[in-house]
Amino acid sequence: MPYQAPTADQLFVLKDVLGLETYANLPKFADAPMDLIEQIVEEGAKFCENVLAPLNKVGDTQGCKWLPDNTVTTPDGFKEAYKQLVETGFPALAADPAHGGQGLPGVINVAFSEASSSSNMAFSMFPGLTSGNYAAIASRGSDEQKATYCAKLASGEWSGTMNLTEPHCGTDLGLLRTKAVPRGDGTYRISGQKIWISAGEHDVSENIIHLVLARIEGAPPGVKGISLFIVPKYIPNADGSPGARNEGVKCAGLEHKMGIHGNPTCVMAYDDAIGYLIGEENGGLSIMFIMMNEARLWVGLQGLSQAEAAYQAAVTFAKERLQGRSLTGPKNPDGPADPIIVHPDVRRMLMESKATIEGMRALLYWTILQEDLAHVHPDEQARQKAGDLVGLMTPICKAYLTDKGFEIASLAMQVHGGSGFTEHFPASQYLRDSRITMIYEGTNGIQALDLVGRKLPAKGGRAAMALLAELNAVAADAGEDPAVAPYVDALNTARERLQDATGWLMQNAMANPDNAGAASTDFLRLVTLAGLCMVWTKAAKIAAARVAAGDSNPFYANKLATGRFFLERIAPEGALHLTRMKTGAAAMMALPAEAF
Amino acid sequence: MPYQAPTADQLFVLKDVLGLETYANLPKFADAPMDLIEQIVEEGAKFCENVLAPLNKVGDTQGCKWLPDNTVTTPDGFKEAYKQLVETGFPALAADPAHGGQGLPGVINVAFSEASSSSNMAFSMFPGLTSGNYAAIASRGSDEQKATYCAKLASGEWSGTMNLTEPHCGTDLGLLRTKAVPRGDGTYRISGQKIWISAGEHDVSENIIHLVLARIEGAPPGVKGISLFIVPKYIPNADGSPGARNEGVKCAGLEHKMGIHGNPTCVMAYDDAIGYLIGEENGGLSIMFIMMNEARLWVGLQGLSQAEAAYQAAVTFAKERLQGRSLTGPKNPDGPADPIIVHPDVRRMLMESKATIEGMRALLYWTILQEDLAHVHPDEQARQKAGDLVGLMTPICKAYLTDKGFEIASLAMQVHGGSGFTEHFPASQYLRDSRITMIYEGTNGIQALDLVGRKLPAKGGRAAMALLAELNAVAADAGEDPAVAPYVDALNTARERLQDATGWLMQNAMANPDNAGAASTDFLRLVTLAGLCMVWTKAAKIAAARVAAGDSNPFYANKLATGRFFLERIAPEGALHLTRMKTGAAAMMALPAEAF
Repeated sequence: MPYQAPTADQLFVLKDVLGLETYANLPKFADAPMDLIEQIVEEGAKFCENVLAPLNKVGDTQGCKWLPDNTVTTPDGFKEAYKQLVETGFPALAADPAHGGQGLPGVINVAFSEASSSSNMAFSMFPGLTSGNYAAIASRGSDEQKATYCAKLASGEWSGTMNLTEPHCGTDLGLLRTKAVPRGDGTYRISGQKIWISAGEHDVSENIIHLVLARIEGAPPGVKGISLFIVPKYIPNADGSPGARNEGVKCAGLEHKMGIHGNPTCVMAYDDAIGYLIGEENGGLSIMFIMMNEARLWVGLQGLSQAEAAYQAAVTFAKERLQGRSLTGPKNPDGPADPIIVHPDVRRMLMESKATIEGMRALLYWTILQEDLAHVHPDEQARQKAGDLVGLMTPICKAYLTDKGFEIASLAMQVHGGSGFTEHFPASQYLRDSRITMIYEGTNGIQALDLVGRKLPAKGGRAAMALLAELNAVAADAGEDPAVAPYVDALNTARERLQDATGWLMQNAMANPDNAGAASTDFLRLVTLAGLCMVWTKAAKIAAARVAAGDSNPFYANKLATGRFFLERIAPEGALHLTRMKTGAAAMMALPAEAF
Repeated sequence: MPYQAPTADQLFVLKDVLGLETYANLPKFADAPMDLIEQIVEEGAKFCENVLAPLNKVGDTQGCKWLPDNTVTTPDGFKEAYKQLVETGFPALAADPAHGGQGLPGVINVAFSEASSSSNMAFSMFPGLTSGNYAAIASRGSDEQKATYCAKLASGEWSGTMNLTEPHCGTDLGLLRTKAVPRGDGTYRISGQKIWISAGEHDVSENIIHLVLARIEGAPPGVKGISLFIVPKYIPNADGSPGARNEGVKCAGLEHKMGIHGNPTCVMAYDDAIGYLIGEENGGLSIMFIMMNEARLWVGLQGLSQAEAAYQAAVTFAKERLQGRSLTGPKNPDGPADPIIVHPDVRRMLMESKATIEGMRALLYWTILQEDLAHVHPDEQARQKAGDLVGLMTPICKAYLTDKGFEIASLAMQVHGGSGFTEHFPASQYLRDSRITMIYEGTNGIQALDLVGRKLPAKGGRAAMALLAELNAVAADAGEDPAVAPYVDALNTARERLQDATGWLMQNAMANPDNAGAASTDFLRLVTLAGLCMVWTKAAKIAAARVAAGDSNPFYANKLATGRFFLERIAPEGALHLTRMKTGAAAMMALPAEAF
């Protein structure tokens, strides 16, 4: 069975776990009643299933092609699908009405974004990057820049890119060398080489708007001297149409890579390209972080999306493949063998996938809701709290969801057995495509450092305090239903471990900063597990109430059965992470470099 | 830096951890003094580094090509390298002198096999499969079959294959349909389709000897009616040269697969091919298991080999890539940034790889030593014990070493950051190549079932008892050095967890067989961790003694530092596995199939 958007679980999260209807009195949310949300989720699902999913393998097999005239062609069907996407209006749902958008909360779009990325991750990177590009210009561009670019980017007619990395500088942006020289007319000449630029050149949109980090001549060294420039492929005409070719920017080649073949990863050569400063001189990094934080949540979503798609492929295979007999007696006595879904170890892989995916979905959607609340909530304290939670949970969602996206893609391959290793089945593509998500937009190790070194200590630990308060509130609100009690216990245990870990960090990171670095990945997992326990408790409360009320939809009893697997086999991982992090940096740093 | 065989650690394991010299009074071992072993390891390393490693990327990029005349060409250089390999005599080191071999213990070859597979896994599958083929014919073939095939297979002049899988039947061999019809002259006509046949057709050896599972007309259904046949590509002449083409066997195509492109994975079509029964009618499975058990250890070795090669690539990158500054102050103050090996989270990945690899190497080599002892030890009880231990540890080595081979390849990619995802660096190939090892020769889930369902209960649990006795003996023999005490503690803890887990299984698997299946993978990990604690204790004892004696070689202090990482961050995983397995099958099996 080909991919089908998990609309039932998506709507359960939006409606029940997040309780979107309770925000109906807030700006933006007021325009998004539940029936509209349902309609968007369902229409979006159809588009993804019917238009994007059939192109996923085509994209992997054909890949993108670079031509000697520095143009890039996308796989068959991508151009047409992109045109259809723009026509649906989905990209503009959450954009500002001033830019032709619908002005709906961002969380409205998340189910569609997930399904879009599950259907075709490489394709969905075209609109995905554009969305971050739009956000940066919409929030920091001049009025003229907004007027020129925002509507085109919001609709998707034009697409966008982020240009950070150079051959010698990825994580460490302070090393970057791309130069910006004032032309005297307010514009700049941009020169330098950027690598790993997703969708840097292609044929799906009529213009490509590059956001490029560069150093203005004479700027201070390091990250304090970095500015951000808009470098359009075609200079926009006064009437808004794409004008003359910006000759100084071109794609010098494509990377050969393990996955996401349907999206071109470009080497971009800038040679006196015309660029427009966005925001302040030397203020580029803070604008880039607007894009970056948005992009990190979206990469987390990619992880979730590949997990879901791979899991679905594994389920299909496990139900169809006949091999061996159940340990408890034949389940398909008339067939030559039982479907392999009867075997406990196959179940283990499917249940681990399912329980992880459902928790991740709820946690990610919840985080994206906080992002909306941080913008639209009328109460300043509520906005601040939501903003703190988004900041804290962004590295969590990026790192955990992508680690698990890849792990679950690997489990899906394992369920397929030898078939999974062949390119005849989809498991290999999910495995290969998902792997990049652990790396780009800041490797998962960088996410852990961002959490421990930046998000945790910021403003006296305010974000962590907000999370702990939220965990307590959810526990207190869980009610007395004995079916929910084990979730509350797990939540309390996870919270205590997190407090313990935070205390350990405060004591030991000062004494030796390497202790913070050494602890970072385990600490990230402890925060994640607490977050997962939180969303599972919310979900269980609702599901248990429905079961108790005699709801005939098996969804709710199944949700509790899946939650039990989470409680029994995933939540206990926290003990190991706490044990590990408390061993500190000594063993990790003991060997001299030459001993490796 | 390109791959370099880890000869220092290999020799430490062979000489110190296994104490090969203490077996000098045994047959075969008597002919392998330590200086000969050192020479073999070092000469082998040179061959692998100089001849095989340079062809690894060539093999991945070019792949094998199927031609319409049903022949297959291998990548450039493979044919010549194979010829050189045969000339070195390495393949025949452990073969019977009656077949032109050197008659040395199998453990002599393991360091070379590891380095060979690290250098070029796809290439090393040609001799690897041949070795299992040789073992099957040497132990169960008729005298005539031995005379015809063994010397050619031992030298590698002819290569071998295993033909088990059919499109509808992989793990569940009882379903197989390939037919064998007596021709009346003692030979058979073999007809059917086999898939996933590694090295089923190629141009590196002058003949290819297929061992094919098939059902003789009228044989009982299921696994009791399966026989094994020798089906040579060219029928051997009386003088031992390859004669007429066996027209009924041909390669109908190749699989397109995620990795091991340098080795052809063939669809083999048998259509009245001439076959020679090996062993008894309907006795095929037991012969196939001779090959299979050997092959499973060898696949475990592949996992180790990919881990080592990927780890080395990660180390090279981590020492060269300059990005960011150490948290404890610049370590490369004259450069633009520090090498990323200074960062704790990069260290975490490298140390996890290193500690895991060194433990796996010791455990695998120890298991292969047991295999030798099971054959050559003059004392029957010692032979039985060694044989029991090999049987028990075969699924352990296959599953754990391949799970970790892939995980470590993924860690290596992560250390590379974005570079790792491009095919310009070797990380992608290691990741893609290693992934098959978790699947073939029985998926790792099947290994766990083999352990729990077959190896553990066999003969009243004799093998597990032998392992527990060995663990106790190693603990008792560890001495009083306080540097070794934490290893003994970890070993005792691991043994207690294993006993606890075994007790739980005995109580709960009878009540519900699904409990055994549900527990199997966690149980496999518990046995593995006990085995790793055992070999680490042996290694630590020797290293600590050398350090105490003032040995100036930093190898020994580094071994203890690496061991500390194992103790602090890997050994504690046992608690989680025990917690998980004791939750039983309930949550795993709760959902109806349609809920997935």
